[in-house]
Order: sequence, then structure tokens, then C-alpha cells
Amino acid sequence: MKALWFDGKRLRLREMKIPRPARKEVLIQIHYAGICNTDLEIFQGYLKFTGIPGHEFVGRVIAGPAPWLGKRVTGGINLACGKCGYCRAGLNRHCPSRTVLGISDKDGAFAEYLTLPAANLHPVPDSIPDLDAVFIEPLAASLRILDQRQIRKNQSVILLGDGKLAQLIARIIRPETKNLLVIGRHPEKLSRLSRLGIKTMLADEMGKIDPGKKPELVIEATGDPSGLEMALELCQPTGTIVLKSTFHQSPEINLSKLVVDEIHLLGSRCGDFTNAIKYLTRKKIDPTDLISGIYELENYQGAFQKAGSGKSLKVILKCQR
Amino acid sequence: MKALWFDGKRLRLREMKIPRPARKEVLIQIHYAGICNTDLEIFQGYLKFTGIPGHEFVGRVIAGPAPWLGKRVTGGINLACGKCGYCRAGLNRHCPSRTVLGISDKDGAFAEYLTLPAANLHPVPDSIPDLDAVFIEPLAASLRILDQRQIRKNQSVILLGDGKLAQLIARIIRPETKNLLVIGRHPEKLSRLSRLGIKTMLADEMGKIDPGKKPELVIEATGDPSGLEMALELCQPTGTIVLKSTFHQSPEINLSKLVVDEIHLLGSRCGDFTNAIKYLTRKKIDPTDLISGIYELENYQGAFQKAGSGKSLKVILKCQR
Repeated sequence: MKALWFDGKRLRLREMKIPRPARKEVLIQIHYAGICNTDLEIFQGYLKFTGIPGHEFVGRVIAGPAPWLGKRVTGGINLACGKCGYCRAGLNRHCPSRTVLGISDKDGAFAEYLTLPAANLHPVPDSIPDLDAVFIEPLAASLRILDQRQIRKNQSVILLGDGKLAQLIARIIRPETKNLLVIGRHPEKLSRLSRLGIKTMLADEMGKIDPGKKPELVIEATGDPSGLEMALELCQPTGTIVLKSTFHQSPEINLSKLVVDEIHLLGSRCGDFTNAIKYLTRKKIDPTDLISGIYELENYQGAFQKAGSGKSLKVILKCQR
Repeated sequence: MKALWFDGKRLRLREMKIPRPARKEVLIQIHYAGICNTDLEIFQGYLKFTGIPGHEFVGRVIAGPAPWLGKRVTGGINLACGKCGYCRAGLNRHCPSRTVLGISDKDGAFAEYLTLPAANLHPVPDSIPDLDAVFIEPLAASLRILDQRQIRKNQSVILLGDGKLAQLIARIIRPETKNLLVIGRHPEKLSRLSRLGIKTMLADEMGKIDPGKKPELVIEATGDPSGLEMALELCQPTGTIVLKSTFHQSPEINLSKLVVDEIHLLGSRCGDFTNAIKYLTRKKIDPTDLISGIYELENYQGAFQKAGSGKSLKVILKCQR
């Protein structure tokens, strides 16, 4: 099969053997895979991953246990032991001995095929087209915020970031509160949100925010190491910052501000796929307008150039001819 | 009056005018003042403070509104506006226009006298001797943790740090759970806790902790910029880290670990003096065994040398002859 392989320094297209599913695993023919910021961070050394990256996908099961055969699916990215305290508590995404699809010790979705435990699969309803389904993983990650913090009707919320993840988050927060302000660095990305009736502001103008009207909740989804410092400036004392960005750097943080202002800082990662699928089935969100380009695996260099340019939103790899 | 004055570079003993209390303020003759890590951080440039440092004190009111005259008192360190949303919500310690005794724009307690709004005062009951009362502020700051996070009976808790603040925190957490482990760098300081029946471990031996048995709650009170990184290593995924240390540096933090493990990081600062006074009245804690030395103001150089040596716990300044 064709696959994109990252050797720790460089990504290249390789011809590889189709992986064989182990017991209780399936083989999936991948239709599409989405490029996430985490993939770009991996190329900068994040988690020292080597192998096939990619963790956002939709495809069809072509080998494995009978009930799954022929089904169109996506899948949870954490491959957990199923036995430890976390797994027993339903927190398999925190299983200490897990591998993570395309991120940690497990080949991912930038290929024609991948294997995954049947336990990780989610069937994709017919009403969700492939190009919507490829957003299920980042949509679930965005919805995770609502699991962690209830947003009151018309609560004041600032969302930092205007990239692909922030765009999804904005669309999810918007129905919860009219009092959402999105701060970003890209006028053309912010204007997509303005068109949806969401208030926006350029990061350069942050100083205009009345210090007496800092919000109780700031969601950081900039993908940038400077995001938390911005969030600490904007969040009201005793307020909450939800932190979504992961990157290879360890930025310098003014922890004393966090202590003195008694801020709650809340890490937020993967979410519930079932919930994300419901959102798409009920047409509560249309993510396809975030697609900036669809590239064949062979044109991966163009795809990653586009994805890393700062001007694009979601770049998709088409994994089958 | 005699006062210790920090000019932004150097602390020295100065002869100064006794401050005049404004309307609704009192003049306090200071008996004793405690040296806190924050004072040592101020000498390193924390918050760019200049003036008289010192925010832990006990003394007697010698001028001001009649009901307070002659009363032995200590006082809350945040001088708030009393009018803003925070003040109205009882969160005057987060008032954005506050000054802070000996920390921010307000002369503090390393002197013979200080002024303070009557609203900040707490009378010290006769049953609490001066050398206990000087611990009310740090004791309140320690008790703040219990306001922010309930500790279940026998919940597993790790406390990082064995210094003066950590010693108080350990004594407060101990009655809540037998499952407390204190990790520090000073065998002689840890042995004080062992003698109270508290489990301790040297930081060098942290690797021995079973990764499957990481606690749900880690309290960071090391006073050191490296404390949070240690806490992130030790805290179980989805667990809580309470952060107490303030310092002038902005350390490099592995934020991705915080995101991936979905850690709650909770800044924790000042607490309720009334509660701390109750603890001392009911003899639930005896802080005086933490006193490493009592120095006259004139011997401030010896006092700060002792306080900064790493071998001492609480160093006290005697502010009256």
C-alpha cells in the first residue's frame, strides 16, 4: 500500500505491506484523512513519533469480525489495555499503557489502510458523507469542552484562535451563549465567524477589552505556545482557562499570575465520538466549509505545505484513488 | 521609626516617619513579622516592588477608630476598593485596583509601625500568643486549599515541598487523610513530618512511585519553579494540581502533558483569616515549632541570611525593642 512515513526527520511516500489485523482488530480501507495541528507538531519532534502519522479518518472495514465487515467507520484514537483502573472507569483515553493512532507507537491514517481494534470503531451513519465524517475526531475533541465545563446561557466566553480547531469550537459554543468573542490573528478566518453572527477581534486589539469585563471562561485553541499567556491576561481572577493546544515546545509561563489570580487551568483533549456523530446527523454543524483543499497521498508535499501555511483551515488527504 | 526599605536592588534599615492613618484606617505598632518566600522573591525582582516588605504580622492598634484602639490584631493583606464586582462578591483579594501589604504599592510589616484599613483587621484572641498569631496569614493561605478542593477521607494526596508553607499545609491535610505523602529535598525538614506520623520521601526517590498509583491530588508548595514539572509527573490523568508557589521567574512548562492528561491546575493564594484563627484557638495546630530564629529589625541581615539558607523554616522579625 501507499503510506506517508515519518522517520523522525522527514515525511516521505513509501510503498509498504498492508498491515494484518490482530485478533479482535479490523483492517480499514481509508477513504479520507484530515491533517491536524498535532501532525504538524509531530514533524517538529512532538512526542518523538516515527511511523505513519494521521488520526482523523473515515474508511470502510474490509477484514475482521463479521459484524463490522463492509461497514463505513471512523475510530477512537486511543488503543487502551482494557484492564487497568482507567479503562475500567471508562477513561481508556488515559490508559497509561495505551498507544495512540498516528501519534504514539501506532501507525495512523495517512495511508491506504490501517488496523484498529474493533472496540475503537464507530459506525458512520449513511446520512453523514465521508467529507463530514472525517471531522468526527476533531469535533469530538471540541465537544469535550462542554463535558468539562457547563456554559451558562449568555455567559461571557472568549475563544482564542481562529484555526481549524477553533473554528469547530466556535460553532459548538455559539448555540450555548451569544456572549462569545473569538480573538485571532487572521482577518479572513475571523470573517468566516463574523458571517455566522459571532463577535470577533484581532489579537492586536486585545488591549481594548475593559479589564473590568474579563470573562470567567477563556478557551485557548491557538495551537501556539503563546496562547496560554494571552489567556492569562484575559481571564478574570478565579476564572477558568480550557487549554486545547499541544505542541513540541515547553513555553515559559507566568505561573505566579495563575496563583495570584487563582485561575483554574483545565487541560482538554479527546472527546466522545458518539456525541460528535449525533451533531453531524442532526446537522447541528456543517464542517465541510472548513476544507481548504483535498490532496491525493502522492501530492502530500502540496498538502502539508498548504496545511502549514497559516492561511488554510482543514486540509484533507484522499487515501484511495 | 525603624523600617526595612527595599529600593528595588537592596534592602536596608532606614529611619522613617511613622505613617499617618487615613480615614477608616488604623495605626498598628507591630510586635512580630514573619518572613515569607514571597519576600525573598521580591528581593529577586518579583512584582518590581519597592518600599517596606512584609505581610505576616501581629501588633496592637495605637491610633484609629475607637472600637479598635488597644486591640491586638493581624490583618488581611489585600487593600481593596470595596466597590467593584469582586469586592461586592466578597472576593476583595481579587479586586483589580487593590494594593497588597508589603507586596504591591503598600508599605508592609518589616517596620515598627504600619497603617491598614480597619476593614482589614482581625482581632487576635488572648488565647493566641504573638508568636502563634504571626502565622495566621500563612495558615489562612494553607487552609485556602481546603476551600478549593474537598479532600475525601483517606484520599491519596502528594504534597511537594518541605519548607515553611509546606509544613503548615502538611499539618492541615493530615487530619483529612492518612494517605498523605510529602516529597521534599531536606531530610531534616522531612523528619519533622515523619515524627508527626506523616509519610515522607526524598525527591530523588520519586521514581519509586508506582505509575499505576499516582494520586488524584498533588499540592505544589516547593517555592521552586521546577515544582510544577514534578507535579505533572506525579499527578494521575484527570487529577488536580493545586499550585501555591509564586516566584519571579516564568519557568518552561510542558503544557502538552497538561492537555493530554487533562489535568486541572488550580492556582491558590490567600485564605480566610477567621478560619485560621479558629484553628489556633482550638489548638488544632502548633506552628511555633517551625520558628528557626527571631531577630531584631537591626539584625535584618542575619535574619534574611537565615531565611534564605534553605536550612531554616520560619524566621521572625521582632519589630519592637
